[in-house]
Amino acid sequence: MSKLVIVGTVAFDAIETPFGKTNKILGGAATFIGLAASHFNVDTAAVSVVGGDFPQAYLDLLSDKNIDVSGVEIVKEGKTFFWSGRYHNDMNSRDTLVTELNTLADFNPVVPVNYRDAEVVMLGNLHPLVQASVLDQMELKPKLVILDTMNFWMDCALSDLLNVIKRIDVITINDEEARQLTGEYSLVVAARKIHEMGPKYVVIKKGEHGALLFNNDYVFYAPALPLEEVFDPTGAGDTFAGGFAGYIAKTGDTSFENMKNAVIYGSTLASFCVEKFGTERMQNLSDKEVHKRLLQFKQLTQFEIELA
Amino acid sequence: MSKLVIVGTVAFDAIETPFGKTNKILGGAATFIGLAASHFNVDTAAVSVVGGDFPQAYLDLLSDKNIDVSGVEIVKEGKTFFWSGRYHNDMNSRDTLVTELNTLADFNPVVPVNYRDAEVVMLGNLHPLVQASVLDQMELKPKLVILDTMNFWMDCALSDLLNVIKRIDVITINDEEARQLTGEYSLVVAARKIHEMGPKYVVIKKGEHGALLFNNDYVFYAPALPLEEVFDPTGAGDTFAGGFAGYIAKTGDTSFENMKNAVIYGSTLASFCVEKFGTERMQNLSDKEVHKRLLQFKQLTQFEIELA
Repeated sequence: MSKLVIVGTVAFDAIETPFGKTNKILGGAATFIGLAASHFNVDTAAVSVVGGDFPQAYLDLLSDKNIDVSGVEIVKEGKTFFWSGRYHNDMNSRDTLVTELNTLADFNPVVPVNYRDAEVVMLGNLHPLVQASVLDQMELKPKLVILDTMNFWMDCALSDLLNVIKRIDVITINDEEARQLTGEYSLVVAARKIHEMGPKYVVIKKGEHGALLFNNDYVFYAPALPLEEVFDPTGAGDTFAGGFAGYIAKTGDTSFENMKNAVIYGSTLASFCVEKFGTERMQNLSDKEVHKRLLQFKQLTQFEIELA
Repeated sequence: MSKLVIVGTVAFDAIETPFGKTNKILGGAATFIGLAASHFNVDTAAVSVVGGDFPQAYLDLLSDKNIDVSGVEIVKEGKTFFWSGRYHNDMNSRDTLVTELNTLADFNPVVPVNYRDAEVVMLGNLHPLVQASVLDQMELKPKLVILDTMNFWMDCALSDLLNVIKRIDVITINDEEARQLTGEYSLVVAARKIHEMGPKYVVIKKGEHGALLFNNDYVFYAPALPLEEVFDPTGAGDTFAGGFAGYIAKTGDTSFENMKNAVIYGSTLASFCVEKFGTERMQNLSDKEVHKRLLQFKQLTQFEIELA
């Protein structure tokens, strides 16, 4: 069975949307990535850090999904990373209300020994030096390394970011971030410039407008499923990445054609994530529901024009 | 052979983009719709009005594309409708600099007698009473009536617009207009409300993000081809509609499955339209080029996940 290493935050979120407001609930990139990847029956380990305030029940929840949490360090005297945000009425933009790094500030990721030969590594959004240190620990060159990042690191750690970007195969990034990273408005030109930085594959996430997968001259466009209601977008991008990484780890096939399918799985899982607050929907998502929505995705996008 | 009636402006445009600036050039909704529909070998008539200042060469250009211009009234003492606009750097928004209605102010469309049994009618963006008067002239109920409109008519002729919307089969509208017409942010909910106003099919155009086709519970999402450069977006929406209408007229098949193909043809043709100023690209577009780009659209959107 393939192995998948996920590095990222395991955290508390507090979320306000036009539909309501939560207290501190389970959040974090590695959490969402892991829950999405759990649909693919691969050996998965989360590498992260939490404080002594983090409930054992949350760790158990991840373990119950067959996510190995031995790489989640518990700093007893520390506090868990906490993020709080408020979404605007259009649900496409948000204000960050609170960011408390807490134990994340001194996070030194340690990949469990039995995962240092993992075929797929998913570097969730973290300081680029932390992402790089995970790669340094791998004893075999992974078949595929996927990196997620955000504008914050472009602003304050650009050269570290560029160094780790050189070492990866797939970057997932949103449209505004792709524009910021390259100074190009056209996403086609931006993707080409990112290829030149290292990654052979560039995934540009466009939220409700779907996602683009670039590999030099090849492009694939997976639309997002049009939804009646987006309840809470938190974690949708990480869920997408987790579905992508999990599908690649399961199939072991890193061809462009198979990555198209990985993008579709990612989009499908992300379409569930936004239906409830935080991880709620992803905690209780059956394979049957996923299968049904994949069929919807086929209906949504497939057509039958006969061409020679 | 099927017949297609197009009503809309035949006009002068003057366009400014970050790439340059034109003098008065050929424009107008019926012009773009007609040029797109000319790729489908159907008997096509344009119904419009121009002034004595309109060059015969422009009418000849349309005739050469097998568009019957006998329904384009020439008001010798009048002037042709003129629109001028300036696109912003993102090419997604624009300012209207000049709108001179001229002969369009008193436009009384007359459908040529031999086109009053046309199978497909494409009502380009015009005053809803003008659109309705075209329907009144049809002697046989058309197989499919498609209507395009814009926010301007929602602001100043809403009840006339709602009356003509009741009588049509397909509406093409952009995302912001769909939201304005229904007061709903979610496009899924907006489409449902528009269904209730009459049209069985709702096409929501999202520019660079593609187009959605709704038919009650069914949705199809055709992405736009990611382009290196959008040179001039003028006429892209009309080109989309012309491709859609032309394909339906050619195939005579108004099923949802076939409408998916019509959306793909519309998107394909629109992707060419934006490559040069005004109608320039559409005047010199070969069927071979269209065929090649359709293949690109298949590569862009089709995937092979095996599902039971």
